[in-house]
Amino acid sequence: MAKFLNFDALHNKIMIHREKVKSLLETEEFNREVTVMGWVRTFRNNQFIAINDGSCMGNLQIVVDFNNTDEALLKRITTGAAIAVKGIVVESVGKGQKVDIKATSIEILGDSDPEKYPLQPKKHSLEFLREIAHLRFRTNTFNAVFKLRHALAFAIHQFYNEKGFVYMHTPIITASDAEGAGEMFRVTTLDLENPPLTEDGKVDYSEDFFARSANLTVSGQLEGELAAMAFGQIYTFGPTFRAENSNTTRHLAEFWMVEPEVAFADLEDNMQLAEDMLKYVINYALVNCKEEIDFLNNRLLEEEKTKPQNERSELSLIEKLNFCLANDFERLTYTEAIKILKASKPNQKKQFKYLIDEWGADLQSEHERYLVEKHFKKPVILTDYPADIKSFYMRQNEPDEQGRKTVAAMDILFPGIGEMVGGSQREERMDKLVARMEELNIPQEELWWFLDTRRFGSAPHSGFGLGFERLVQFVSGMGNIRDVIAFPRFPKNAEF
Amino acid sequence: MAKFLNFDALHNKIMIHREKVKSLLETEEFNREVTVMGWVRTFRNNQFIAINDGSCMGNLQIVVDFNNTDEALLKRITTGAAIAVKGIVVESVGKGQKVDIKATSIEILGDSDPEKYPLQPKKHSLEFLREIAHLRFRTNTFNAVFKLRHALAFAIHQFYNEKGFVYMHTPIITASDAEGAGEMFRVTTLDLENPPLTEDGKVDYSEDFFARSANLTVSGQLEGELAAMAFGQIYTFGPTFRAENSNTTRHLAEFWMVEPEVAFADLEDNMQLAEDMLKYVINYALVNCKEEIDFLNNRLLEEEKTKPQNERSELSLIEKLNFCLANDFERLTYTEAIKILKASKPNQKKQFKYLIDEWGADLQSEHERYLVEKHFKKPVILTDYPADIKSFYMRQNEPDEQGRKTVAAMDILFPGIGEMVGGSQREERMDKLVARMEELNIPQEELWWFLDTRRFGSAPHSGFGLGFERLVQFVSGMGNIRDVIAFPRFPKNAEF
Repeated sequence: MAKFLNFDALHNKIMIHREKVKSLLETEEFNREVTVMGWVRTFRNNQFIAINDGSCMGNLQIVVDFNNTDEALLKRITTGAAIAVKGIVVESVGKGQKVDIKATSIEILGDSDPEKYPLQPKKHSLEFLREIAHLRFRTNTFNAVFKLRHALAFAIHQFYNEKGFVYMHTPIITASDAEGAGEMFRVTTLDLENPPLTEDGKVDYSEDFFARSANLTVSGQLEGELAAMAFGQIYTFGPTFRAENSNTTRHLAEFWMVEPEVAFADLEDNMQLAEDMLKYVINYALVNCKEEIDFLNNRLLEEEKTKPQNERSELSLIEKLNFCLANDFERLTYTEAIKILKASKPNQKKQFKYLIDEWGADLQSEHERYLVEKHFKKPVILTDYPADIKSFYMRQNEPDEQGRKTVAAMDILFPGIGEMVGGSQREERMDKLVARMEELNIPQEELWWFLDTRRFGSAPHSGFGLGFERLVQFVSGMGNIRDVIAFPRFPKNAEF
Repeated sequence: MAKFLNFDALHNKIMIHREKVKSLLETEEFNREVTVMGWVRTFRNNQFIAINDGSCMGNLQIVVDFNNTDEALLKRITTGAAIAVKGIVVESVGKGQKVDIKATSIEILGDSDPEKYPLQPKKHSLEFLREIAHLRFRTNTFNAVFKLRHALAFAIHQFYNEKGFVYMHTPIITASDAEGAGEMFRVTTLDLENPPLTEDGKVDYSEDFFARSANLTVSGQLEGELAAMAFGQIYTFGPTFRAENSNTTRHLAEFWMVEPEVAFADLEDNMQLAEDMLKYVINYALVNCKEEIDFLNNRLLEEEKTKPQNERSELSLIEKLNFCLANDFERLTYTEAIKILKASKPNQKKQFKYLIDEWGADLQSEHERYLVEKHFKKPVILTDYPADIKSFYMRQNEPDEQGRKTVAAMDILFPGIGEMVGGSQREERMDKLVARMEELNIPQEELWWFLDTRRFGSAPHSGFGLGFERLVQFVSGMGNIRDVIAFPRFPKNAEF
């Protein structure tokens, strides 16, 4: 009969003999003794413990001989408690699983007071879980989301590594405010109560840590270009920042970007690289995260059921991912897109909030969604935007027959997400680049190092930025960007 | 006879047919036409162009028929210029290479004025190259260093991915000043000229972007622990920051850290994981970066020759790396280390700047170097440091027979580098953790989420931090940490 004893010296050398739930769920070797550790998900009838150790989404069933178990111990087997179990691998008595562990001894490693533990075995809203982001990884949904996030990150590294790209860590703290984005976070060690002042009463940044005004980067691109002009092909994968006061389901103040930059590449090469990469990583996730994607697929189907019929998605998550792999992204110019939008029903019927009136208008989310979700029903690459709504470093196209100026930009728009990728061929011609910087009052002195790439051995080159959280959103089907990053940063929130 | 003509429409669709230098240097297919693009390294006798495109360290030789080439074009083939060459793959006429390209046409993509281009085909000092960090990737040394950095980063991801760890992106901006490090960068959007004030005249951070005072993270560990308590095994790999005013060859204000955290693991598991990881990635580099490591090995041998005999290293770089793989790291306690240091010659002869007098002293770089480089001559893992010189979250050991308090910490010391890894088993016992926090005046309210892991399902767990740049230094043999990160950040410097 089973005896329940504390392990001796369990707190030393414990991992060495621990077996993971994932491997036990797949084992074919029965009637052997194993040690397993994890957290209690449920404990039914004083008899069946479902234990999870994070190694997979599935739980392992521990069968307890409750007649021969100390009652005080049984009471401590509560949802969330950490336990160590020694037991025998047996064929499962229940349905839906192959393996049970018949416990021979159990130790409570850490209790979890059921009166206080916020995660009980019931459905919690995503909003509630956001408040306890430090615990939400312990739910199936977030287990799946963050496993998927891991897999996508790894797939990105693998994709670029296989292609011979060099991974660059571009600086997080930068002194240049070059893109003129304006919405940057300042980084400082000055005493804000009493900052040093210059003679004319301004804050004296020459006394700051970097002896100048410094910010958090909004993009690694400019530095990435420097490296591409030596290695030929590089990518960055790091955090970027926007101090924008936007409280939406699509924006974060701190997010991760992937920014490849390729020498001797034009806009078409750039589009191909982006499409190849997206398909590679989506396929990687489908192959390597089957359990997680199945779960998220079902989660989304359940969520869809709560919506009115006409708002439901035509495709399930898995269908959407496979559809992406099977079809070429639709490529068209901004000018062609404007024609489609102008003639579209929501524009004609004035259902758009921002009506498309004339060439030159910046596209809003509603327009992008119309093109992707209604008109083409697949990912769309829009190219050759008006120069006036794009950045100074983008390559200037020849003006069209009507004299309109465009740049060799490309944005990739995804259903449900909007802009997933933004990129361009870069302006490699010094004279044109400098002329544009002058037009926009961008100081050349500050960017002397950037201009040096055009001064010495300039070459055509292209690159793009991928918003990593938006990719995770697309592949996981999560509607709110705050649910795909561990500890989201947004206005008035930097908890945890 | 060769004619030199500009390509038609070269600036469109150029990458598609471009062949890389790396593949051409290895090709066996002769007498075919190829297009190659890259930067001129040297141009000898108006006849031999050495071209490099970053795909490997080696250059490809282009043979120019200078009798039939426009002189104006020849003049523009200068060091650093970007060129596109069409030509025939032929067996090389020279020694040391297999393949030449017999040029049929050449186009200058971007000039490089030899009067102004700072990188000429001669040896430049590392100090000089640091001033032009935007161009130094174009040298062989930095090509090798950053290819190696890439390979080491990829190897780290691969190591953890294979072991089933989940890659977490812990937040860069944090509101907690929990470690009491003090030396943090503030992140703010307040107007420093005119910050909002509270009634008692202090800066009112409730009006700042995050509605509270916020900083750049010094470590992802505390958040990593939250995730480890759900996934079992996680790691971070991201930038961390120290606003320390240290101008050394070993410190940066912005650097990258790898921080694994493992549930159900003790200090011994932790040491084993760190040693396994270091050996895995060093081995990966030796196998995958042979060309780069050979180059750096020779570079170091040359550098050593300039030193007096008695200061030269006994082992070459490659020997040092292989030695690391072949030997177990030496494990000993702090207490044992103190005994060795106390009895050591430099301590007896008062050659140490900080003499080792009694138990409890913090080890200085000179002591670590003595242990690693003189006494054991291999990597050393020091464990069980005095509690007073380590962080609050480290697991408290039982006091020793003399009543001295230690914690289950471990530091891995490497020859020439010093501390490469710092880690510990974490204090999982709520009462002991809280008592220590009270002793050190660490506010518990701020860390409510961290304490929750001990409140709900606490379990033994361990983790460490690896300074990524120090790893790159060790494997590349570069003496200055500023030479292994693209754009180093240190006091008074945030250029590029």
